[in-house]
Amino acid sequence: MSVSALEQTTSPSGKAGGRHRVVVVGSGFGGLFATRSLKRADVDITLISRTTSHLFQPLLYQVATGILSEGEIAPATREILRRQANVTTVLGEVTQIDVAARTVTSQSLGRRAVTPYDTLVVAAGAGQSYFGNDQFAKHAPGMKDIDDALELRGLILGSFEQAELAAIRGDKQEVARLMSFVVVGAGPTGVEMAGQIAELSRRTLKSDFRHIDPTMTTITLLDAASQVLSAFGDRLGVIAQRRLEKMGVDVQLGAKVVDVDATGIEVQDRAGDVRRIEAICKVWAAGVQASPLGKAIADQTDAQVDRAGRLQVEPDLTVPGHPEIFVVGDMIALDNLPGVAQVAIQGGKYVATTIKHRLAGSPADKPFSYFDKGSMATVSRFSAVASVGKLRFGGFIAWVTWLVIHLFYLIGFKSRITTLLHWGISFLGRGRAERVITEQQVFARAAIERLGPDHQPHLP
Amino acid sequence: MSVSALEQTTSPSGKAGGRHRVVVVGSGFGGLFATRSLKRADVDITLISRTTSHLFQPLLYQVATGILSEGEIAPATREILRRQANVTTVLGEVTQIDVAARTVTSQSLGRRAVTPYDTLVVAAGAGQSYFGNDQFAKHAPGMKDIDDALELRGLILGSFEQAELAAIRGDKQEVARLMSFVVVGAGPTGVEMAGQIAELSRRTLKSDFRHIDPTMTTITLLDAASQVLSAFGDRLGVIAQRRLEKMGVDVQLGAKVVDVDATGIEVQDRAGDVRRIEAICKVWAAGVQASPLGKAIADQTDAQVDRAGRLQVEPDLTVPGHPEIFVVGDMIALDNLPGVAQVAIQGGKYVATTIKHRLAGSPADKPFSYFDKGSMATVSRFSAVASVGKLRFGGFIAWVTWLVIHLFYLIGFKSRITTLLHWGISFLGRGRAERVITEQQVFARAAIERLGPDHQPHLP
Repeated sequence: MSVSALEQTTSPSGKAGGRHRVVVVGSGFGGLFATRSLKRADVDITLISRTTSHLFQPLLYQVATGILSEGEIAPATREILRRQANVTTVLGEVTQIDVAARTVTSQSLGRRAVTPYDTLVVAAGAGQSYFGNDQFAKHAPGMKDIDDALELRGLILGSFEQAELAAIRGDKQEVARLMSFVVVGAGPTGVEMAGQIAELSRRTLKSDFRHIDPTMTTITLLDAASQVLSAFGDRLGVIAQRRLEKMGVDVQLGAKVVDVDATGIEVQDRAGDVRRIEAICKVWAAGVQASPLGKAIADQTDAQVDRAGRLQVEPDLTVPGHPEIFVVGDMIALDNLPGVAQVAIQGGKYVATTIKHRLAGSPADKPFSYFDKGSMATVSRFSAVASVGKLRFGGFIAWVTWLVIHLFYLIGFKSRITTLLHWGISFLGRGRAERVITEQQVFARAAIERLGPDHQPHLP
Repeated sequence: MSVSALEQTTSPSGKAGGRHRVVVVGSGFGGLFATRSLKRADVDITLISRTTSHLFQPLLYQVATGILSEGEIAPATREILRRQANVTTVLGEVTQIDVAARTVTSQSLGRRAVTPYDTLVVAAGAGQSYFGNDQFAKHAPGMKDIDDALELRGLILGSFEQAELAAIRGDKQEVARLMSFVVVGAGPTGVEMAGQIAELSRRTLKSDFRHIDPTMTTITLLDAASQVLSAFGDRLGVIAQRRLEKMGVDVQLGAKVVDVDATGIEVQDRAGDVRRIEAICKVWAAGVQASPLGKAIADQTDAQVDRAGRLQVEPDLTVPGHPEIFVVGDMIALDNLPGVAQVAIQGGKYVATTIKHRLAGSPADKPFSYFDKGSMATVSRFSAVASVGKLRFGGFIAWVTWLVIHLFYLIGFKSRITTLLHWGISFLGRGRAERVITEQQVFARAAIERLGPDHQPHLP
């Protein structure tokens, strides 16, 4: 694997000088960091993404629970890359990669674009997985993009609005269903969502209603595993679970979801018994499925995908037999690397370095090695758990560490400032700056609508 | 008109003590200020609104152009009223007012609620008017609520994204259409929108694209009248027009819109000649139509509505023959009062005072008199026009006045702080903090979609 493989594919139809063409698919951590790290490289980069923003996914739950605005965690990708002259950012959903022809086909509003590449970096991430039960999605939205977060915001806050109306009508059964929230999956996202719904109901909404008492909200966190935050080890799992229980979250472990419908969820325990939890608002934070582009590449090459759709890549993050195709982030299956931001960021940077070395004719790089900077999850304000190297710690110090690190990784000075302000409002105060429910949150509405059979959608 | 009319309707089914029941319809300026001014009154208030937020409509254009987040201009109504124990806030679209039975029927997600009142305050505001051409709405969205603003944000920013793609394809005609923006109506909203689209294209997006030059965007501001900002008088109209033209806005007066379709707009000049302007993104800021609840009341009483659907009320803001029904804000036709926030705010306060006086058995109040605090409109950063008393001034001083007054009227300390920050980002810097386009902005997408006949909507 040397520059030769690259040289022979340099397109004669390229720009003046026939610069090496790099196509990057995805504007998440992997795609963005690969692109930025190629800033001084003599290449033409085309970054293709189906969204116009770079999403800071670890804070998505804060948009869903009204702490942050969508702009704070999703700055415009083309603004971030504004000064990087060797990048063209284009909107488009990649529908096909032609490995033999070395082209990427993308689509936006029905128009197709075919972009040739000399080197391809695929960083299309992962979506929600319902483990083969896609019909659950209708009743239990996931937490993967801004639309999901806004939908959940409408669903969570809208549930309290509808509960107040049901209480005025005297319909106790419906009040109970509407004031019951179920979060499926006790990984970081599930723990953070459950914790924030608890804070919302116990603190933010405490005095906002007259006919319901939001502090009486039932919050259930389910997981089929036997502990919370299983990736963090026993001790931190126990710390997080105790903290959640102290906040009134009912943590149910060894509980496998077997059915989800409009008004509830059915779970099976280890003994095989099935029980039902009544709840209108269910949040799915249980599993991920890599972008179907992984499978598309596997179908054309000797590469394999695992059950989660992740592509088995070479130690240098290339596709077997195709040194010109790199895959980074949540899409790869390599050495049991977790699907976290740091794997994508470091992968993106590694790939950029490899591309630069190849173009310079340097010898092959060392394999990609992931440096684990640690993992953390917030449970509530002032309380987090962190696993850094051999250190395991929880509580306030972990929370402050979480806060500083997340501020540091947020892109842009202005996002950091307004985010810090909004955190002040929410953590020191009791407010939530972003509680708007729009008509456009149609899916959220649709979920609550199932309660009202004679509903006429009100649209402009 | 004394307390007698009220006493006889006090419901026996009321709460302990049978407190006087006030129902307020609408959470805009009129409804909110009427409610807040009844804070210390011995009444039970039910505030019914079809949204969960109090919208600060004068800044809606800043949400549409990415300066502010929706939460900053639309705080949750029930949070504002949290400490006011005599108010129940409920979500619902009022579908009927039964004047004889003294009840209000509202609906949310298909469920109906009937709320009896002793005194009714109707403050349901106004929607967009297309002057009988409702089919225009599909192609030229209005600017009345948060959904409109987010839709326009998606449409405006999405147009540049699509223009970049069209430029890569080499489709010059489509680039021109996508980079042509038309604003219909040269009142404050239209002037502010045109000014902000100019700022977006000339400053914010200047270096963001590689295949189009956003500074070459065509922006057309149309009005059938012979001057810009006709309510502000000749001199300020000329100042605003010159400033807009300096920013590259093509101001076309005496231009009546006769047709709007997916790719353009047709206007007729005073001589009767019709010409076409090609543009995908059209913004309708031309007319208002009062809530249909005005007509519903007129149909049951001796009251009349004018062409804009506004109810002709008595000098004390009551419906003729119905001293128990007050109407405030954009819904009233009285002494040619303009449809501005101050009319609604002062009307709401006046009505609250009248209710308190009646309950105390005081003699009838003086008629409502509107104190004109002045009007202002921003044209661009650092430039506004203001009309205060006999003073007419434009430029930087007017802009600073605008800024201070708007910050003052924004509700909540936290909104003021974050808004000031976002203004700093946008006016001193060149950024826009809120550029997210969501999948949920379906109408915006639909508008651009018309370009692509083979489009498959991508929904989760």
